[in-house]
Amino acid sequence: MPRFNPLSLLTLGIALSLPAHADEGMWLPAQMPELAKPLRNAGFKGRPAALADLTAAPLSAVVRVGGGTGSFVSDAGLLLTNHHVAYGVIQYNSKPDNNLIDNGFIAADRAAELPANPDYRVLVTVGFDKVTDTVLGAATGKRGREYFDAVDRASKAIIAECEQEAGMRCSVANMYYGTDFYRIKQLELRDVRLVYAPPRAIGNYGDEIDNFMWPRHTGDFTLLRAYVGPDGKPAAYSPDNVPYRAPAHLRLAGDGPKAGDFAMLAGYPGVTYRHRTAAEFDEQVNWTLPQRVAVFDQLIGVIESAGAADAEARTRYAAQLQSLKNGSKRAAGELEGLRRSHAVQVRAEDERGMLETAAAAKERAGIDALAAALAEGSAVRERELLLGLFGSQTQLMRTAITLERLRLESAKPDAERESGYQARDHALIEGILKQVQRRYAPAVEKQLLTVLLARYQQLPDAQRLPEFDVAFGRTPAALKKSLDALYAGTTLGDEAARLSRFAAAREGRPLAADPLIDLAIRLVPAQLRLEQERKTRDGEQLRLRPAYMRALFAWRQQQGRALYPDANGTLRISYGKVDGFSPRDGVIYTPVTTVDGIVEKNTGAVPFDAPRPLLDAIANGDFAGTADPALKTQTVNFLTNLDTTGGNSGSPVLNARGELIGLNFDSNWEAVSASWMFDPRYKRAVHVDLRYMRWLMAKVYPAPHLLQEMQAD
Amino acid sequence: MPRFNPLSLLTLGIALSLPAHADEGMWLPAQMPELAKPLRNAGFKGRPAALADLTAAPLSAVVRVGGGTGSFVSDAGLLLTNHHVAYGVIQYNSKPDNNLIDNGFIAADRAAELPANPDYRVLVTVGFDKVTDTVLGAATGKRGREYFDAVDRASKAIIAECEQEAGMRCSVANMYYGTDFYRIKQLELRDVRLVYAPPRAIGNYGDEIDNFMWPRHTGDFTLLRAYVGPDGKPAAYSPDNVPYRAPAHLRLAGDGPKAGDFAMLAGYPGVTYRHRTAAEFDEQVNWTLPQRVAVFDQLIGVIESAGAADAEARTRYAAQLQSLKNGSKRAAGELEGLRRSHAVQVRAEDERGMLETAAAAKERAGIDALAAALAEGSAVRERELLLGLFGSQTQLMRTAITLERLRLESAKPDAERESGYQARDHALIEGILKQVQRRYAPAVEKQLLTVLLARYQQLPDAQRLPEFDVAFGRTPAALKKSLDALYAGTTLGDEAARLSRFAAAREGRPLAADPLIDLAIRLVPAQLRLEQERKTRDGEQLRLRPAYMRALFAWRQQQGRALYPDANGTLRISYGKVDGFSPRDGVIYTPVTTVDGIVEKNTGAVPFDAPRPLLDAIANGDFAGTADPALKTQTVNFLTNLDTTGGNSGSPVLNARGELIGLNFDSNWEAVSASWMFDPRYKRAVHVDLRYMRWLMAKVYPAPHLLQEMQAD
Repeated sequence: MPRFNPLSLLTLGIALSLPAHADEGMWLPAQMPELAKPLRNAGFKGRPAALADLTAAPLSAVVRVGGGTGSFVSDAGLLLTNHHVAYGVIQYNSKPDNNLIDNGFIAADRAAELPANPDYRVLVTVGFDKVTDTVLGAATGKRGREYFDAVDRASKAIIAECEQEAGMRCSVANMYYGTDFYRIKQLELRDVRLVYAPPRAIGNYGDEIDNFMWPRHTGDFTLLRAYVGPDGKPAAYSPDNVPYRAPAHLRLAGDGPKAGDFAMLAGYPGVTYRHRTAAEFDEQVNWTLPQRVAVFDQLIGVIESAGAADAEARTRYAAQLQSLKNGSKRAAGELEGLRRSHAVQVRAEDERGMLETAAAAKERAGIDALAAALAEGSAVRERELLLGLFGSQTQLMRTAITLERLRLESAKPDAERESGYQARDHALIEGILKQVQRRYAPAVEKQLLTVLLARYQQLPDAQRLPEFDVAFGRTPAALKKSLDALYAGTTLGDEAARLSRFAAAREGRPLAADPLIDLAIRLVPAQLRLEQERKTRDGEQLRLRPAYMRALFAWRQQQGRALYPDANGTLRISYGKVDGFSPRDGVIYTPVTTVDGIVEKNTGAVPFDAPRPLLDAIANGDFAGTADPALKTQTVNFLTNLDTTGGNSGSPVLNARGELIGLNFDSNWEAVSASWMFDPRYKRAVHVDLRYMRWLMAKVYPAPHLLQEMQAD
Repeated sequence: MPRFNPLSLLTLGIALSLPAHADEGMWLPAQMPELAKPLRNAGFKGRPAALADLTAAPLSAVVRVGGGTGSFVSDAGLLLTNHHVAYGVIQYNSKPDNNLIDNGFIAADRAAELPANPDYRVLVTVGFDKVTDTVLGAATGKRGREYFDAVDRASKAIIAECEQEAGMRCSVANMYYGTDFYRIKQLELRDVRLVYAPPRAIGNYGDEIDNFMWPRHTGDFTLLRAYVGPDGKPAAYSPDNVPYRAPAHLRLAGDGPKAGDFAMLAGYPGVTYRHRTAAEFDEQVNWTLPQRVAVFDQLIGVIESAGAADAEARTRYAAQLQSLKNGSKRAAGELEGLRRSHAVQVRAEDERGMLETAAAAKERAGIDALAAALAEGSAVRERELLLGLFGSQTQLMRTAITLERLRLESAKPDAERESGYQARDHALIEGILKQVQRRYAPAVEKQLLTVLLARYQQLPDAQRLPEFDVAFGRTPAALKKSLDALYAGTTLGDEAARLSRFAAAREGRPLAADPLIDLAIRLVPAQLRLEQERKTRDGEQLRLRPAYMRALFAWRQQQGRALYPDANGTLRISYGKVDGFSPRDGVIYTPVTTVDGIVEKNTGAVPFDAPRPLLDAIANGDFAGTADPALKTQTVNFLTNLDTTGGNSGSPVLNARGELIGLNFDSNWEAVSASWMFDPRYKRAVHVDLRYMRWLMAKVYPAPHLLQEMQAD
């Protein structure tokens, strides 16, 4: 089997050594042997070399499942992940007379295990191979859009060839921002079954109120099982299928975490921006986040005023309001965190140091060209933000633009259509068109557009588009007149009017006249032009970032620090320790919570409505075999300083001996800015203490056969 | 000078000894010598005997000021208390062009000190004498209302005689619920001046948001100075007055508090209920508090629905809504705390133990009679709650009842009128009548009355009053008809209509007809009857509680615990230590906060708008002489487990050597139930660290002459 080879590092002649920030790092498995010394210093008792191959034990036990991570915990395909990662499976199996979300589920035996929704997948990595030369071969010498397209074409060809093998799902991962490319080959297990789920009031205790808010008290775990055909190959659900024999599985630890203990975690973190340039950090903190908060808050104000006077508008815009509020809160939290960490200054000083190295001098032309390419994007950032919201925050306007775009794309062969407008997307588009009615009030949409377009009208000439200027004028009065006329005349508020045009659009036929459709016909060409410009800029960044990364490698080497690629949905390892923190002056968060907190939070009302059997078991106090020896009670969740981000949900947390002690499921609010900067004072990850799972499965909602299966050798 | 003699204890033959709950206790100064051993064990380095006399040094340095406590900190009458205790004085001296609340104030010299509002007082205790025999002499053999009146008459006679001496203010304090009575003689200093106040954004940093919420970061202190006439006697303000030579003053410590340090505090706690009966605990937890929350929440619902549809109603009821919300939150917090502490069970078990003692057997008749008297009150508790709110939560209804009551009282000689309706109260009543307009909307008042009277209509016959049944009927329909007619017909919504009737009422003349006035004429006799019944019940409790207290003394003796009287506004001492706590699972509050927290909380907007000079000084980091040696930064506030309640504001906090280290100003939210039960896990007091005051006065808003005065020997 081809082995991962950390060529990007060796090629550059860089020796890995102790990172200065010992707890930061989403390491590639291949980097682990080089981290042997810091790993041992941190307390790891295993062989670092055994962590190098993500296609062999123990890492091959760690798989993609749903939108997150999972790990095999028996030799018969038993799979541990989060309740929220398996939520769709539980929901899919709920019936009016037996709501498994509320009630939880225990399969008494394998025959009782319930098939997941047919599109639910478990992906087991079986190949991880460097394909940089193949991917970049055709791109060399090209620029901008051509560079982008060459990389895209080469990647698609690699994937197509790889997927010739039955049962395989393949992808190409881009490491260090276009420096290296890897072909990932994954076994696609399609028969996944629900084995054990706690009731929602355990698996999602605290819900949105506690989300991000330490201390947590949530039993966010579920057990699934992967099945394959009798021939051992991936297969759709069939009663004849047999449990998948995983190439490796993790073993439950007999004890649990305590402050200071070594901990490590493997999973599929989604995206981070840690190695972006100082200019990008500055833009994020001083423009993007404050601007997002300001525009979102203005839109929130429009919806709230409308809702105060009109109960129907309040109902129709409830979801959009919630989403804008979450977006604003999240952006404000990220901004607060980045400011608290002085992220702009820290990154700027770091980059200044880098630019003084000899390596940076050699790369100077590329680095300067990258800065120029980024500046081109920044020059149109306000327009990009406003036009994005112009589509995403409206219903009728988006309908008109979607229909016209669909008409244009449908004139092409399906394979050449823009993703999102292919035949496979038609059902989704139709569903969205049908929902418009329930999410729309004409007066509110006009006010939202007035906010966005009034801002747009203030943009400098270079950012504005002639098509928009003609359509909406250059003054508030012209804007009002134009919107009044559009919304007085459009019939797209009627479902039939939308669906009849959808029927035409999907066949590439002309759309019946309507003021908003006529507008869309004039605006979509501008939209297409902007898409081209965006791909050109993306291509230039893809071409130029490797120069910056080479300089950064050299700088980190000079500092004696290793460099991990920013997260990109590929398997990473993080190591560190069980650790509390001080969120603010006068307050300390301890790293391990107990069942006392469940009782304290319990109100009897959702989301703090712990089930009676749980409350009784806590009151009864039989924690024999799972109690923490020092706390002398049952623990629930714990904190580590491990480096995680979205996608790490369900990641197994291991102790110094590589045994399973926890299940990652959340971060703390203070770490919401960690996608840009890891601040060791505040970055923590939140895990289910598996002693809590063992206790629940032993004493509260018993499943002794599953405990036995997990604890068997 | 007559000395306090803990006769109530000696009479009962009880030896004081180590209390089982070492940190609980609002001790009488006379109890301190008996607490010498536990005091020493806790770390106290001084002479416990020196704390026995509240009319001699050092306790004579601790005085009543405004509604709280203060202490002399120089031999020239300099007085340290809270910013919030001196708030009225600062406000009184603010001018449109110099708002001292916003700007703070530093008197450059004594001539620049600003006179307080003329009714502001400092009271220095000069006598504390047992008068039990005199007070109870005339009451012996009486019961109910007669017992109450006899105690009241005897107390008033003692006060009148005591106040014959010029410059004295006297009172009679009731200890151990009618077991003992003391005459308190206090020098009434009437010329008080403002010397130093920090800006509001320091003295009240965090305001209502941080109130009760540890961690705190508030510089809640102010310096005043007491003056007397050139003859050394109390006098009204005069430029010829001279600083008062206090009989004692406290000295500032050179260092500050750290976790575990001994701490003690003296002050005037207002009221606690710790020695109430188990039945009263049960009623508080299982009836009073839940009922208060339920009724308040229903009234809140009425006002919020009205406000959602009517902006004017929203404005007019804003203050009432805020007050109901605070009341509901406070009651809910107290309930939560008492439940968390299992207060009902703990007190019930304790009482069961007591009832098994020989002493309780001797007192059995009295204890049983007390239980019966309390049950009489409980039998009408719902009516009492509803009729209280009937007056306090309405404007026109209250106006009518006040006017009719005033008319009746004004027919008597002034001295015989019920307190609140005497000539001295007329200005206040007139002010309230003038404010009605701004706090009233007829539709809302009708709905509030509907809520209260609909509950009233559900009461059993024995609780209802014929006058109310006649006025409002027995059915919802009758109630609606009656309220509709009353509010359609009344003219009391007009200020002139209210004030013309006020002019008549204050002279005892008949009031011009009006539907609500006519109603009040029918209801006030019922109100007067209820008042009589209440005084009768109060008299019975006053007569009977001493039996219960004697049994409790005996039980505590058997347990080896001392017993302090419940708080009653007299000087008490508490001792314990500097101590953080865990408010809930997973969270620890550290006992000392630092200036870091000021910066963290600062938003630039009220109430988190730290002044620029403070922020600059923090950034500058010159904490020489006041920094905490371990934290290596400037501290701000600290926590102790000292036993406090309302009235302890401004209490000096002393270290083991009796030096001043802090100034009490707040409690933590988790301790809101401590007026009923001291739970050592949660009961904390919040203090200004005087190192923060010293730093502010040295480096931020300098007043070196005052620091020198406080630090002089």
